[in-house]
Amino acid sequence: MADPSTSPPLTRASVFEARELIKGFVHHTPTLTNATLDRLASTPAPAPLTGADGTAGRKPANPRIRLYFKCENLQRIGAFKIRGAFHAVERLKREPGWEEGGGRERGVVTHSSGNHAQALALAARTNGIPAHIVMPTISAAPKIAATKGYGANVVFSGSTSVEREAVVAKVVEETGARLVPPYDHPDIVLGQGTLGLELQEDARDIIAAAAGAEPSHSKNIPAEHGFRAAVTTPKLPESKKTNPSLDAILAPCGGGGLLSGVALSCEGTGVRVFGCEPWFEGADDAKRGYESGKRVEAVSTLTVADGCAPRWANVSEDEIIAALKLIYERFKMVVEPSSAVPLAVALFNEDFRGLVEREGGEDGWDIGIVVSGGNVNLEALGKLFAPKDG
Amino acid sequence: MADPSTSPPLTRASVFEARELIKGFVHHTPTLTNATLDRLASTPAPAPLTGADGTAGRKPANPRIRLYFKCENLQRIGAFKIRGAFHAVERLKREPGWEEGGGRERGVVTHSSGNHAQALALAARTNGIPAHIVMPTISAAPKIAATKGYGANVVFSGSTSVEREAVVAKVVEETGARLVPPYDHPDIVLGQGTLGLELQEDARDIIAAAAGAEPSHSKNIPAEHGFRAAVTTPKLPESKKTNPSLDAILAPCGGGGLLSGVALSCEGTGVRVFGCEPWFEGADDAKRGYESGKRVEAVSTLTVADGCAPRWANVSEDEIIAALKLIYERFKMVVEPSSAVPLAVALFNEDFRGLVEREGGEDGWDIGIVVSGGNVNLEALGKLFAPKDG
Repeated sequence: MADPSTSPPLTRASVFEARELIKGFVHHTPTLTNATLDRLASTPAPAPLTGADGTAGRKPANPRIRLYFKCENLQRIGAFKIRGAFHAVERLKREPGWEEGGGRERGVVTHSSGNHAQALALAARTNGIPAHIVMPTISAAPKIAATKGYGANVVFSGSTSVEREAVVAKVVEETGARLVPPYDHPDIVLGQGTLGLELQEDARDIIAAAAGAEPSHSKNIPAEHGFRAAVTTPKLPESKKTNPSLDAILAPCGGGGLLSGVALSCEGTGVRVFGCEPWFEGADDAKRGYESGKRVEAVSTLTVADGCAPRWANVSEDEIIAALKLIYERFKMVVEPSSAVPLAVALFNEDFRGLVEREGGEDGWDIGIVVSGGNVNLEALGKLFAPKDG
Repeated sequence: MADPSTSPPLTRASVFEARELIKGFVHHTPTLTNATLDRLASTPAPAPLTGADGTAGRKPANPRIRLYFKCENLQRIGAFKIRGAFHAVERLKREPGWEEGGGRERGVVTHSSGNHAQALALAARTNGIPAHIVMPTISAAPKIAATKGYGANVVFSGSTSVEREAVVAKVVEETGARLVPPYDHPDIVLGQGTLGLELQEDARDIIAAAAGAEPSHSKNIPAEHGFRAAVTTPKLPESKKTNPSLDAILAPCGGGGLLSGVALSCEGTGVRVFGCEPWFEGADDAKRGYESGKRVEAVSTLTVADGCAPRWANVSEDEIIAALKLIYERFKMVVEPSSAVPLAVALFNEDFRGLVEREGGEDGWDIGIVVSGGNVNLEALGKLFAPKDG
């Protein structure tokens, strides 16, 4: 990882620069729409509300919502993480003295049992750089195999963060490899932010096209099913908005790198950014950290992104599973369970929906949804979808 | 259903005419490629073969295969059936005397517990025609709800075909509705065949584009993941073929309407058509019927399609599940288990693979794969993917 002091400033312009650097290595993934999900999102919940989230008894919100799904499940390695990893490596290659000092031979190292492991392994292999990936011994066999499949040297560790960091330190000592952390670094944040730029541009094209004439073969076709953007111009609920831009983007919080990058990509555009989290077992750490003023380390970069600090929205596990099922049934698309969190917010979070109703009014809001990845364990997925009594 | 004697002849030209009739009502679904699946299909099985299908001890075939997936899971109602249903209704509207004789008011009727029920319900509703759908009382609740959701009058029956046909006869007697059967009718066959035309044209475009220059943003990007066609021109294993057309299409047998239609769409083109079936519990009825000369009623139209009689290829249940998992994991796409049968043939059927090796040689074959539908029961899917010991 390049020394953070040599990183570009955390601004929207730097996200554009990051895009130039990684352009040859990542997919511009499709942005897709789905009329059924728009209809569901634009229908009030049945009254009376009975939620455990403080909304009980309130009148259900009645927003108008049009959704634009940024499909990073169709990205290389099946997740957005490839953007940050390629950007980090490109930045490292440009660090003064790295190449001359033998940095390429010494390689890179990280600890991850998930998508970042595969992302860094691929980015390193593409550049002919050795990658050492520290994974807990208890990692699922397919994840270990996938990481090795991208040519990385997998080093095992215990599963606590102390144990993992000790092994990383040992690898660094022995090999001189440079650490590329999964999210808490400006180069990673700027790389992930590139998907925010694509989402804004794609949505603008779709909104503008929907306002104009439709191609003849899509006439009279309600878009019950997904991937319309690949085929025909989608038919959207009518809007009188004169500016064909998104009103908001909903992104998962995760480690904060994606959310920070998306926030930067919206800087100065007026697009509101919402971080979406489960409110299950204290997983809403980002929201609590933000509200208490004590920032979680992982999202510390947010405070630097002046003028584009995201807001937070939480949903329950049941709401996430309901949204996940809709993505499978209606979009026919395979996504990771965590990727359903932003859609769950649009469909079920009454605070968010009330805000859209108040601020969007008759025209409603055009909302970007970040679908972060599609690397599922089919057996675990099977259990999630199997009947509860089974 | 229009009287078959008034139907157009079963020729490729009639499939083009059918396409004109249904153009405003069905999606031109995407045709997608996937480099990982091409690589897998172009890799020999581990030797020695141990198959129970007569291949034990044989040298594994080593074909070169490039696949083109026609994604009817992204079609309206989630399956190709909508094509035949809309075509049947359009033909009915053109039957002399139907409109004047009050045919529209009397409506249409069919018996189906699956995709044809929803397809006919939607085609009828779109045309303001009442639809009566006879479904067994044991049908899954979501299927009944979906069919009612398209505005159809659902009539229940016993589950044997005798019981179902008796109820249909009663509905016809009481309402004067016209029967639209699920597959065994020229109008249905011609409607389903339209997907064969699209597949041939799309594949030709992709093959021609791959032979030329690629857009800059897809350079150096191996297409590990699906839906490339929506984004960039896919990079295919090199071929010296001068004719950018498919060598073969693999389609599920099912009721025979789809397979017959696809065969017609290839008439005179040189594209070979293969019907793909499980060889589980005698389900290879089409193959046996064909070989014995005693045709199964359902596929009787095949004999009319002179010069384009399909061949058959069978695969085991385990091979189908392996192909299904690859579609979920690599394409990130939700498909019905039966839609994985053609891919299973390309990956695992040694007779088919040997044929491709012999006839395709160095250049290999470009093979269209019909992905017939994506309407899955997530709970059943969960059980399929759950660990065997779970």
